[in-house]
Amino acid sequence: MKLSEHTWTDVADCETDLAVLPVGSTEQHGPHAPLGTDALTAAAVAEAGVDRYDGTAVIAPTIPVGVAAEHRQFPGTLWVSPETFRRYVRETIESLRTHGWDRIVVVNGHGGNVDALRELCGTLVRESEAYAVPFTWFDADIYDDIETDIRMGHGGPVETSVIQHTDPELVREERMKRAGEESATGWGEYQSGVNLAYDSAEFTENGVVGDPREGGPAVGEGLLDGAVTALSRLLETVATRDVSRPQRRD
Amino acid sequence: MKLSEHTWTDVADCETDLAVLPVGSTEQHGPHAPLGTDALTAAAVAEAGVDRYDGTAVIAPTIPVGVAAEHRQFPGTLWVSPETFRRYVRETIESLRTHGWDRIVVVNGHGGNVDALRELCGTLVRESEAYAVPFTWFDADIYDDIETDIRMGHGGPVETSVIQHTDPELVREERMKRAGEESATGWGEYQSGVNLAYDSAEFTENGVVGDPREGGPAVGEGLLDGAVTALSRLLETVATRDVSRPQRRD
Amino acid sequence: MKLSEHTWTDVADCETDLAVLPVGSTEQHGPHAPLGTDALTAAAVAEAGVDRYDGTAVIAPTIPVGVAAEHRQFPGTLWVSPETFRRYVRETIESLRTHGWDRIVVVNGHGGNVDALRELCGTLVRESEAYAVPFTWFDADIYDDIETDIRMGHGGPVETSVIQHTDPELVREERMKRAGEESATGWGEYQSGVNLAYDSAEFTENGVVGDPREGGPAVGEGLLDGAVTALSRLLETVATRDVSRPQRRD
Amino acid sequence: MKLSEHTWTDVADCETDLAVLPVGSTEQHGPHAPLGTDALTAAAVAEAGVDRYDGTAVIAPTIPVGVAAEHRQFPGTLWVSPETFRRYVRETIESLRTHGWDRIVVVNGHGGNVDALRELCGTLVRESEAYAVPFTWFDADIYDDIETDIRMGHGGPVETSVIQHTDPELVREERMKRAGEESATGWGEYQSGVNLAYDSAEFTENGVVGDPREGGPAVGEGLLDGAVTALSRLLETVATRDVSRPQRRD
Amino acid sequence: MKLSEHTWTDVADCETDLAVLPVGSTEQHGPHAPLGTDALTAAAVAEAGVDRYDGTAVIAPTIPVGVAAEHRQFPGTLWVSPETFRRYVRETIESLRTHGWDRIVVVNGHGGNVDALRELCGTLVRESEAYAVPFTWFDADIYDDIETDIRMGHGGPVETSVIQHTDPELVREERMKRAGEESATGWGEYQSGVNLAYDSAEFTENGVVGDPREGGPAVGEGLLDGAVTALSRLLETVATRDVSRPQRRD
Amino acid sequence: MKLSEHTWTDVADCETDLAVLPVGSTEQHGPHAPLGTDALTAAAVAEAGVDRYDGTAVIAPTIPVGVAAEHRQFPGTLWVSPETFRRYVRETIESLRTHGWDRIVVVNGHGGNVDALRELCGTLVRESEAYAVPFTWFDADIYDDIETDIRMGHGGPVETSVIQHTDPELVREERMKRAGEESATGWGEYQSGVNLAYDSAEFTENGVVGDPREGGPAVGEGLLDGAVTALSRLLETVATRDVSRPQRRD
Repeated sequence: MKLSEHTWTDVADCETDLAVLPVGSTEQHGPHAPLGTDALTAAAVAEAGVDRYDGTAVIAPTIPVGVAAEHRQFPGTLWVSPETFRRYVRETIESLRTHGWDRIVVVNGHGGNVDALRELCGTLVRESEAYAVPFTWFDADIYDDIETDIRMGHGGPVETSVIQHTDPELVREERMKRAGEESATGWGEYQSGVNLAYDSAEFTENGVVGDPREGGPAVGEGLLDGAVTALSRLLETVATRDVSRPQRRD
Repeated sequence: MKLSEHTWTDVADCETDLAVLPVGSTEQHGPHAPLGTDALTAAAVAEAGVDRYDGTAVIAPTIPVGVAAEHRQFPGTLWVSPETFRRYVRETIESLRTHGWDRIVVVNGHGGNVDALRELCGTLVRESEAYAVPFTWFDADIYDDIETDIRMGHGGPVETSVIQHTDPELVREERMKRAGEESATGWGEYQSGVNLAYDSAEFTENGVVGDPREGGPAVGEGLLDGAVTALSRLLETVATRDVSRPQRRD
Repeated sequence: MKLSEHTWTDVADCETDLAVLPVGSTEQHGPHAPLGTDALTAAAVAEAGVDRYDGTAVIAPTIPVGVAAEHRQFPGTLWVSPETFRRYVRETIESLRTHGWDRIVVVNGHGGNVDALRELCGTLVRESEAYAVPFTWFDADIYDDIETDIRMGHGGPVETSVIQHTDPELVREERMKRAGEESATGWGEYQSGVNLAYDSAEFTENGVVGDPREGGPAVGEGLLDGAVTALSRLLETVATRDVSRPQRRD
Repeated sequence: MKLSEHTWTDVADCETDLAVLPVGSTEQHGPHAPLGTDALTAAAVAEAGVDRYDGTAVIAPTIPVGVAAEHRQFPGTLWVSPETFRRYVRETIESLRTHGWDRIVVVNGHGGNVDALRELCGTLVRESEAYAVPFTWFDADIYDDIETDIRMGHGGPVETSVIQHTDPELVREERMKRAGEESATGWGEYQSGVNLAYDSAEFTENGVVGDPREGGPAVGEGLLDGAVTALSRLLETVATRDVSRPQRRD
Repeated sequence: MKLSEHTWTDVADCETDLAVLPVGSTEQHGPHAPLGTDALTAAAVAEAGVDRYDGTAVIAPTIPVGVAAEHRQFPGTLWVSPETFRRYVRETIESLRTHGWDRIVVVNGHGGNVDALRELCGTLVRESEAYAVPFTWFDADIYDDIETDIRMGHGGPVETSVIQHTDPELVREERMKRAGEESATGWGEYQSGVNLAYDSAEFTENGVVGDPREGGPAVGEGLLDGAVTALSRLLETVATRDVSRPQRRD
Repeated sequence: MKLSEHTWTDVADCETDLAVLPVGSTEQHGPHAPLGTDALTAAAVAEAGVDRYDGTAVIAPTIPVGVAAEHRQFPGTLWVSPETFRRYVRETIESLRTHGWDRIVVVNGHGGNVDALRELCGTLVRESEAYAVPFTWFDADIYDDIETDIRMGHGGPVETSVIQHTDPELVREERMKRAGEESATGWGEYQSGVNLAYDSAEFTENGVVGDPREGGPAVGEGLLDGAVTALSRLLETVATRDVSRPQRRD
């Protein structure tokens, strides 16, 4: 049940303690994929995941701006500081909690949000009466059933394929060739286990990591299906897990 | 040009210093209108306003959760603290500014956001190189051409009419009668110029202020048209206004 | 009972749960009225209002610096950020509350404080065991009994008249002519319901809005009388109002 | 020149870079002395000190609530947190600075403010273009010319004497005997150089430290004279001191 | 050159722009390894790494308390909030920068610090004139030359081995058997790529993950050697890398 | 019992509610004494003080960076802001409290930390269930048994003597002559009870206040002995003192 499309009396009648909060980002995804990619995929996974789940969960509106300063050299990238993002998401979750939805899955579509989401959910679990976990769809086990060896990059085959499936009109197919040819092959510049780079513009000219031509709408459909299944199973677990904090060891 | 639907290369080619940022809220709007009313109307006004404007402006994604603790007794209402809201919106605007869009109109759909938006835009104008103003569509001169005397309430004829026009499937027409019959006639409880109430549940049983039956889709079309025109004219002004800060008086 | 002038044993014997906190500003009020106008008027209204009230209330000292960055181009204007102002006033109120004065009326003399006071009082009412409302004297119904059509400006006839009545030696009568001739006629520069200006120096050369010559000491006496009556009535209401928070709607 | 009593055009004509900011507290001073003692004495010293100074300085309004949680068990005591106090005072000083008054002496009347004022002035000196120092009048060399051996306590002979001189109607002479008989002889409970007490109620029953009967109006006149002289000399020094920050040692 | 053991004149003569800041944690490491394990290993790696580096770097003192709320159910675990940790480390780094050491490697010994260090270093790189990266020694390529397949756990073979090598007297060998028998085999409880656990007490009874008996002092020597080499190479890279921020893409 | 060197099972068996937290600074101490002087002395006093105490107390690791911006012109000086320092120390204390160690003595080795420690301990005592006091070793009564009239300076005879006793290899004896000859004789530049200086570089060329040649290792042994005795007695007092907050006076 999407909160935005229902009335307060509708949701008052909805008996569940599960809520899903999609969180995206508005940031460069290469010359071929839209700035809204992460919000679109998070929302798509969240909605379909709740549908597939054999139970009820409310869906909050998608938070569209996240932690993305690493892409700020590319026009159109929006971002807030990690601290502001944590406050905004945490307080939104706390307002969900007041209505009895005290088990929350944050469905995330952006790698740059991962650490901040983990931190705020952990703090919230320890300090409040709610339980929340972040689910980043492309970090779930979604690759096994896809007959390619594509892996998450940025604006690469994983994200582009999903958008080609869900919002094909937003992908500039005519720019795919160039997007792929000029893409970087890996995220960051590593040495001794350390990523020396802080901005994506340090290692990719056009903002792309991974060749988006390796995917396509069918691949996207498969990836989405995997993510949706993973989310629906996670919802089952979260609905029933003992989320009380453990006892002190003495 | 909606940022979410375009690529960074698209927006890099877009020559303008104008950006529009829609801001809504997810909160009760009575038993008949959706929780997402304020975000939907802000987005609709923003998009049509930029279309009507004889120039170019980029449109940021809609911020969906605002300052709405005053509705928290009604299920489904989401909110963040005013301070967190100010930080989130301000930093989003500052990221717009880094791309050269340093004249920003915040298109607001929620009364509870008004003070916070005015404060943050004022602080930003004084401390940064950007100019930003909040435009709250229902506070513009949109009532003169409508042949009724309806005025802004909450989930009342103004907001409901616009949603009946833009998203009719989201209005529960069968609940309009009851929504209206049990609505309050005014916002707050005033004495000596002071609103003694802090929560809408202090003065409205079902969350509604104003009888939504006094409007309708045609009224909504007219109101939207008025808001769109007002916004387009505001964009013209903001595009050309001298926004430098005045000199000290000595 | 003014706290500043009494001992702790005096106030321990004072049986009331009502406190009044005057809040002003130190900021330009044109070439003719003192920088302390807003603090002086707030203190005068507070003191006389408590006198007229048929009951007891303690009066806290006047907070002299508020939210006034909008006048910063004029020498002598002091201000703090809205956030700091909210913290300072809120914590002062919370200290009043610890002594059993948990119904507080903030008597405000400055338009720039209005939004910040409303926000902090609302947050305090929701989060603590106290009830507080801001009363801005010139926003009360004080104009009906005055046989002029003067309205609040800035350093205009309303404020100047009151100071002419309470502190006549602080008004430079010899500058009234020029103050009036060079005054602006309205506060701000509006379009589409939006005030495009953030600083008073954008629309007034000498800091004055409204012609102060339209008032005078007798007008000031009448305005003050109206404000005092409004405050005393508000105190009656606040003393007895049910200030518990409303129940959830389910 | 007291800012509160002058207009912006007056202060624009005032050629000085010196400002004085009185800071007090509203807190218990025993059964005999008023809660406003610290604000009254700070204001009195500030005003007379500027008069005696052979030069010009503007005087800001007195900040009436400080760091006084240590007295919170006594009715009427008001306080804010040290952090909020620092922010409020610092931002007030920064607004003074914008008008060219960039050498500021904070005249303080409350021991509980001392550490916070020193910290905020130090931070301000290092981070901004202003120079500020806190002057706590009873810590200056004011005791030598008084033919008693009274020393600062709390509500004791030093503070009470000054109020007896400046505002005699605010001292309850009939309670002096009891105030003195039940007073504590020292501030705090020390061991190994550590004050083990955090609240004055831990070591004084009636809030008094030091016997106020040891002073009187003549003593108060002498103490005030000493403080005023000390302040006027400090203003001379601050007006001419090289306040640039020292060079790095390399 | 360890700052703590040298004078300011010593370090003034030290020509380098490289600094190393060890960061640990004080937290449970099972019944056999000391609470100080992470600080000890960070300091050991930092010191030996700078020695091996063919150049000069100053070494700051070890920060001993980090982000460790996940172990708080185990006695002796100390922690601060992530936000406080970020502020403390960042400001320490900024003070290093003022002395010309503007390339900083944070040598980290605790997994719980990783996200916070990455965030603060990234913010610092973007906002200040310094470059900083966190190096977490057990995340470097240190396992290849060790003829076992041990991997990082918690109080497991990796950390215990290093302490057995550097501080053997601090390991309770007599408790190793029980530590290992009751240890967990993995960190966290994962589903769909999500760690459902927030506290280590959710998945380990005695705080141990991984069997410490699989290592030993010789293994520890090898691991330390690997970490030291990795750090020394990282220092070479950081000393010469172009750390300017990339240009905007337009 | 030093936490860093024991396991969680060791400290779980330790029956006490006393904890000691050493806090130092890393900052210039002249050309002859190490930057780590304050951390070294705090740790030495803490460890020996707990040993001498006829009871049990746990010892937390030493916090090495404090409030020291006043020495920032001297290379190698590290510091954080007072606010960050307060947060870091307070949260560390609060983590101690969760393990039942709710009576905490902060053993401090740096004058610049004094005010911040007093403030944070006071706030903590008032707001939490713990009791904490800061003990600054050189402010205790340690001078009486030493047959000199040396007094605390900075890098002067008191601190240098203690380091000569505890860590003689860290004192550059060959520079003592010059350190003493160029030392300042007092801390700060006072007038009217006000320290006009904010940075030590304003009044000392080489960072030294007091002639370190007036002490020596034997003096240091005596001073340390005095501090250790003072701390052990303080621990006895803190262990048994009634630390409940006093009642309101009504």
